[in-house]
Amino acid sequence: MIPRYSREQMTSIWSPESKFKIWFDIEAHAASAQVKQGVVPQEAADVIWAKGKDAQFNVERIDEIEREVKHDVIAFLTHLAEIVGPEARFVHQGMTSSDVLDTCFNVQLVKATDLLLEDMDKLLAAIKKRAFEHKTTITIGRSHGIHAEPTTFGIKLAQAYAEFDRCKQRLINAREEIATCAISGAIGTFANIDPSVEEYVAEQMGLASEPVSTQVIPRDRHAMYFATLGVVASSIERLAVEVRHLQRTEVLEAEEFFSKGQKGSSAMPHKRNPILTENLTGLARIVRSAVTPAMENVALWHERDISHSSVERMIGPDATVTLDFALIRLTNVVENLVVYPENMKANMDKLGGLHNSQRVLLALTQAGLSREDSYSAVQRNAMKVWRGEGEFAAFLKADEEVSSALTDAQIDDMFDDAYHLKHVDTIFTRVFGEA
Amino acid sequence: MIPRYSREQMTSIWSPESKFKIWFDIEAHAASAQVKQGVVPQEAADVIWAKGKDAQFNVERIDEIEREVKHDVIAFLTHLAEIVGPEARFVHQGMTSSDVLDTCFNVQLVKATDLLLEDMDKLLAAIKKRAFEHKTTITIGRSHGIHAEPTTFGIKLAQAYAEFDRCKQRLINAREEIATCAISGAIGTFANIDPSVEEYVAEQMGLASEPVSTQVIPRDRHAMYFATLGVVASSIERLAVEVRHLQRTEVLEAEEFFSKGQKGSSAMPHKRNPILTENLTGLARIVRSAVTPAMENVALWHERDISHSSVERMIGPDATVTLDFALIRLTNVVENLVVYPENMKANMDKLGGLHNSQRVLLALTQAGLSREDSYSAVQRNAMKVWRGEGEFAAFLKADEEVSSALTDAQIDDMFDDAYHLKHVDTIFTRVFGEA
Amino acid sequence: MIPRYSREQMTSIWSPESKFKIWFDIEAHAASAQVKQGVVPQEAADVIWAKGKDAQFNVERIDEIEREVKHDVIAFLTHLAEIVGPEARFVHQGMTSSDVLDTCFNVQLVKATDLLLEDMDKLLAAIKKRAFEHKTTITIGRSHGIHAEPTTFGIKLAQAYAEFDRCKQRLINAREEIATCAISGAIGTFANIDPSVEEYVAEQMGLASEPVSTQVIPRDRHAMYFATLGVVASSIERLAVEVRHLQRTEVLEAEEFFSKGQKGSSAMPHKRNPILTENLTGLARIVRSAVTPAMENVALWHERDISHSSVERMIGPDATVTLDFALIRLTNVVENLVVYPENMKANMDKLGGLHNSQRVLLALTQAGLSREDSYSAVQRNAMKVWRGEGEFAAFLKADEEVSSALTDAQIDDMFDDAYHLKHVDTIFTRVFGEA
Amino acid sequence: MIPRYSREQMTSIWSPESKFKIWFDIEAHAASAQVKQGVVPQEAADVIWAKGKDAQFNVERIDEIEREVKHDVIAFLTHLAEIVGPEARFVHQGMTSSDVLDTCFNVQLVKATDLLLEDMDKLLAAIKKRAFEHKTTITIGRSHGIHAEPTTFGIKLAQAYAEFDRCKQRLINAREEIATCAISGAIGTFANIDPSVEEYVAEQMGLASEPVSTQVIPRDRHAMYFATLGVVASSIERLAVEVRHLQRTEVLEAEEFFSKGQKGSSAMPHKRNPILTENLTGLARIVRSAVTPAMENVALWHERDISHSSVERMIGPDATVTLDFALIRLTNVVENLVVYPENMKANMDKLGGLHNSQRVLLALTQAGLSREDSYSAVQRNAMKVWRGEGEFAAFLKADEEVSSALTDAQIDDMFDDAYHLKHVDTIFTRVFGEA
Repeated sequence: MIPRYSREQMTSIWSPESKFKIWFDIEAHAASAQVKQGVVPQEAADVIWAKGKDAQFNVERIDEIEREVKHDVIAFLTHLAEIVGPEARFVHQGMTSSDVLDTCFNVQLVKATDLLLEDMDKLLAAIKKRAFEHKTTITIGRSHGIHAEPTTFGIKLAQAYAEFDRCKQRLINAREEIATCAISGAIGTFANIDPSVEEYVAEQMGLASEPVSTQVIPRDRHAMYFATLGVVASSIERLAVEVRHLQRTEVLEAEEFFSKGQKGSSAMPHKRNPILTENLTGLARIVRSAVTPAMENVALWHERDISHSSVERMIGPDATVTLDFALIRLTNVVENLVVYPENMKANMDKLGGLHNSQRVLLALTQAGLSREDSYSAVQRNAMKVWRGEGEFAAFLKADEEVSSALTDAQIDDMFDDAYHLKHVDTIFTRVFGEA
Repeated sequence: MIPRYSREQMTSIWSPESKFKIWFDIEAHAASAQVKQGVVPQEAADVIWAKGKDAQFNVERIDEIEREVKHDVIAFLTHLAEIVGPEARFVHQGMTSSDVLDTCFNVQLVKATDLLLEDMDKLLAAIKKRAFEHKTTITIGRSHGIHAEPTTFGIKLAQAYAEFDRCKQRLINAREEIATCAISGAIGTFANIDPSVEEYVAEQMGLASEPVSTQVIPRDRHAMYFATLGVVASSIERLAVEVRHLQRTEVLEAEEFFSKGQKGSSAMPHKRNPILTENLTGLARIVRSAVTPAMENVALWHERDISHSSVERMIGPDATVTLDFALIRLTNVVENLVVYPENMKANMDKLGGLHNSQRVLLALTQAGLSREDSYSAVQRNAMKVWRGEGEFAAFLKADEEVSSALTDAQIDDMFDDAYHLKHVDTIFTRVFGEA
Repeated sequence: MIPRYSREQMTSIWSPESKFKIWFDIEAHAASAQVKQGVVPQEAADVIWAKGKDAQFNVERIDEIEREVKHDVIAFLTHLAEIVGPEARFVHQGMTSSDVLDTCFNVQLVKATDLLLEDMDKLLAAIKKRAFEHKTTITIGRSHGIHAEPTTFGIKLAQAYAEFDRCKQRLINAREEIATCAISGAIGTFANIDPSVEEYVAEQMGLASEPVSTQVIPRDRHAMYFATLGVVASSIERLAVEVRHLQRTEVLEAEEFFSKGQKGSSAMPHKRNPILTENLTGLARIVRSAVTPAMENVALWHERDISHSSVERMIGPDATVTLDFALIRLTNVVENLVVYPENMKANMDKLGGLHNSQRVLLALTQAGLSREDSYSAVQRNAMKVWRGEGEFAAFLKADEEVSSALTDAQIDDMFDDAYHLKHVDTIFTRVFGEA
Repeated sequence: MIPRYSREQMTSIWSPESKFKIWFDIEAHAASAQVKQGVVPQEAADVIWAKGKDAQFNVERIDEIEREVKHDVIAFLTHLAEIVGPEARFVHQGMTSSDVLDTCFNVQLVKATDLLLEDMDKLLAAIKKRAFEHKTTITIGRSHGIHAEPTTFGIKLAQAYAEFDRCKQRLINAREEIATCAISGAIGTFANIDPSVEEYVAEQMGLASEPVSTQVIPRDRHAMYFATLGVVASSIERLAVEVRHLQRTEVLEAEEFFSKGQKGSSAMPHKRNPILTENLTGLARIVRSAVTPAMENVALWHERDISHSSVERMIGPDATVTLDFALIRLTNVVENLVVYPENMKANMDKLGGLHNSQRVLLALTQAGLSREDSYSAVQRNAMKVWRGEGEFAAFLKADEEVSSALTDAQIDDMFDDAYHLKHVDTIFTRVFGEA
């Protein structure tokens, strides 16, 4: 996470100020809940809320205390006592640091995910808009980078939409994975704190109670969470790579918007480069790099060890901030993408109709030739076209085996691109629910 | 995937024979569906089914053909034509290899997942049984590897149960991710095959239709699938590491079953080592190693490239076979685990009651001391115990600040281990729905 | 590792037969060395060698014994005793299984690396040959996939040569990392075996003595080894991706050899796809997937645990077999690559001389314009060319600011492609030591 | 990289100020070198150096320009022109941004590595000191976490020393990998800049010339670099895990220094936790997480794409800063580690002499029993000890088969721990060159 690839909306979730505010909320709600248990006097709870609710926690002061006690939560509690006064001794009753830290981390992840879901909706909207705009913009489909058969630019985008729509659902699942709260005390036995406190705090913080926390919210949840971010990042990479391909000089079917005043190269003033999508390719690698450490975090020793903590202090902000930035950047790329339908058409026509080879193959088998003979007949004529010797239709008509099975008119009929588009509506309806 | 870490139930899903059988089913169902379209004569479909249904596909013959045509599906189709005869020309009408390959891969993954889910149920049953057996077997909870407060061996297992129960749900989600079928033809436009064919084949094979496949089922699905296996593997590692810790010579609270005739070390006949759980630790690393390549597979070029194929030919079998083996091995470890409650008790008592330090701390704050003073008082007495200078309770009673707040009887009261177990039923009910 | 992507030369290194042969050699050499120590009688050593040297170890029999004793080395020793007779009791004196297993694993890795180095020499030779063949074959250099300035196809290959030459040196370093031998007994203290035995066995097996092995050869060595394979794989991917790009329909500057009888697509007979290099892209992902588990293997517990073993049983063969296959496949791709110089020239000329924009920029600054003004002048004329409005040189001549600094003749002079090739010899001399 | 886990010495290498200073040096040296070529007037070079050498580059101003031109190097050059004046037009002659960026990145990595090497020397010194201090401090060696045979705490540390000494050499190799300079212009053809400029700048910056850069220094170098950091991190993890094990309550053979005023747990005042080494375990995961993205960066498109850039802006600082911090933290842990030799002895004696089982086994084989019979005899007596039924030596003496081969005196002789330490000097001499 570096400012260059960050948005304030996401980084603010991870600021020390946000963290200490959440810590206070957790502690204060726990105190409220313990009034009923007789552990905390009502007046103490009132004082805690009254003095702490709008307090500005002094990050430097907390850091200073931590340097002595070498424990961040104790440092915070000590500072809180400076603000709240003697009633502070009722704070953190029966709790352990992990109750605060783990619940806070999950609150931050939930907030981060909510923002990612907002981003995703924007991206989906942008893709949908461009997909309908180019629903019937014909373009050559490519397998292995080689011309195959026609498709439309809208179908390309419909695929992206369907993929990010799955990603959205995955994010929703991932949010549920980590939306839990633990206020279960040392080793998670509730020995010194009633389970009802956890339930109360969970409800107040918009979380579910962790069924069994052993002083730590189990990290399989977070492994699943960061793995999901890694999948989303990989989908971003896919669309980014598509744009990079389309912008290649020889292809130039689409192009990132190039703003006035922008410079493509310090040396070569003629350049317009797909730098945003190249950048997204790199950002995807960064988000994915959180997956393995998150999985290595799962096997904590016994009831808990703290090896996960340093990892999460980094990948928590890094992965969410970078993914947020990437989703917004991709949305901008899609919204502003310059599309060149005429180049798409021109590229498609470069192979002189070879993209209809399958239709000819199928017609030959329907006309009675074996699959193998049909294949050979089509392939030998196609290879002549590859070698630049002439036109595909002409070769087919001149081929004895082909022409004994198909008339010239039948052959001509097969070179109609509209044939390939007849199910665009079907696909759009499947993806968007409308066409 | 090596025989040493494989079970036949899983490897058979990935055998060439199984694969060709699935290929046939897909092709034959597609032929049936195309009768209605008038693309395939009813009699041809009948012949295909009649001759192919129980055919033994000759793997060597197919390999031989592939060496010439360098294309596996074409090799299969050629061999199928040798079996079916002239009607074979109606096979694969309007389809592309990917329709067969991708749908088959997903069928195999679905079968593999069903087996993994069976495994998971066995593991859950084994854990549950041992959890109830040791519901109140008291043992010290450890954070950072250091004695903290008492818990029970049953709670340790309840945690594992809850974690694997989540893993089960994740596997169910992962199964849904990859349970899709694509019969959409070249570039996925349905130009030469009606969408109803896909729907029919999907239904016959127990799959959903892929909303938009561009000659390839999008690999974000598989990335999510293998990421999920990686999370499950990490949870296996966690429980394996727990057992390894418990079996350490100095701890010896539990031990893998050591069979008669088994040898622990070629050099040292006295050894009994936790080799199964060490092995599981390694297997977890292997399953996890599939995650990154699966994510790198997502960003295929344009409508499809084939870079994912070699990866999946390996990680498909490797990750599922290894995970299946690991789940069954872990189940055996849990079922046969030798538990030593008396060692648990003895270990717990080694620190002379220090594990009650929090109770004393809380009592002091309740008695009116500040949190900071209470902490100091408890800590200074605890450190004497660490230094081996005597008993915790005695030091507390002798401490002026403590004894001014708490009576000797109150202090004695705090050294009752049952105190820590009062919410075991709550936790069990949360996890198992019963206690 | 699957047969599809394996060569027998490499898989045979990892066969059970090879392994048991190496185990015997280690044991027998150790016995020989212990004659001097008086631990093993000369006659016993003679019998061990005489009966074991050419013995065919029965893999099934060893497996059968292992199923009982659950220990592979003990199973082997038991079988060896069946072959050698009573003198077998002098085998494995003072040794531990790890002495055999770890030394054997390193012997196998050394053999594997020697084969990889042979492969690398073949690849380097193939690249060098094609590089000289195309030393001055002009082609457009591309940054960001966008035309930049001319280079030669030979320089592209020189880069690949330099990269694989570095990879060769890395493999040599990696070989040294793992070419060590441990015969240090339980916990590695040499308590029951003299250090001279290790030195003798090391020398006989072509290895160095491990300075301090704690019953395990430290796995940082293997982490470095597999990390190195991961880097080599990544370099393979780079060249593979280059070929895939060059073969794209719109680019078609080079093409994988397409053999007679080969079929590119089951549906579309016209297709010729870069399937070998796509395959190499996938294989690179597989080789890389060994890196993280190898690193996770480093932190073994205390003097050793066996969690690394299952990992290495898989990644040892998998990574070396796959990399060997990939290097040979890439060599074939390079040797047989069909190069189209005329397409390279045609592509280069598509942007109407824009690739000389830097020369114009530099000339303007030399003529006294500021860098910023020069840049603007060149960029504004270049953008007209991008928009398809005409020729670059013509626009420059018509531009008032440009023409006030440069004469038409000077401008014309800048559109000479030979200008870009003047240092090809320098680069070739740097890379190949000759030009 | 977060302040919590950073040292100023390393972060300052990555500050914008340091970066711009290096950029200036590269540009200015290149200008100097081009005086000879007649490209830059001597006076211009003089002015550039005079005005730029001690200039404070205004980071905010540069950022402001970049927001417009969307190109960082151009933004810097524009700002430089504001400082240098009209002579600035001679800056960057014939160069491309990558010349500056890639060379700068390598300069930063070299500086970072030099600091890491300093750290490593400190760590090695600390380990060596403690190793000699505890050269003969006897402790039980453990395989699989189970008592095996005695070793010394010094040998444990000697192993760590040997491992980090290898890591030092790897860092030296890694430094060489990335200590290269490219000043080769667009596409790396030297079309507009003489190769001698690169040689001059390389020499001034303490680098080697990159033999063939295609506008980008090839990223296999950086992949190898970050892979090496990953291996070093894994070795840190190994020693950290060792300390964590030794500090476990039941083992307590060594302990991280616990400072006065430190608090182990907010809830349990008695706790002293190995938080530094747990933290190091996590930091190792973070450093390792840079390895895969660095490898994914290798396969850039054609002559270059910029997908590596965002990755390196993050992993460059992150991995080096975190590794630097981890090395220093580990050094502190080693220097201040509290070692408890008496606990080591007490733990070793817990198994009543079982750790001598191999000696008895070997003696029995030497006395004429077969290896298998000897093993059975020792194992059956050892298992009684595990079951807590009595003393190992006594059982052996009472065993008919054993006592028929060995006298009681011979058996007693085998329970001498000094036996295991006889080669400590050998090992120390191998590792440290002295004993």
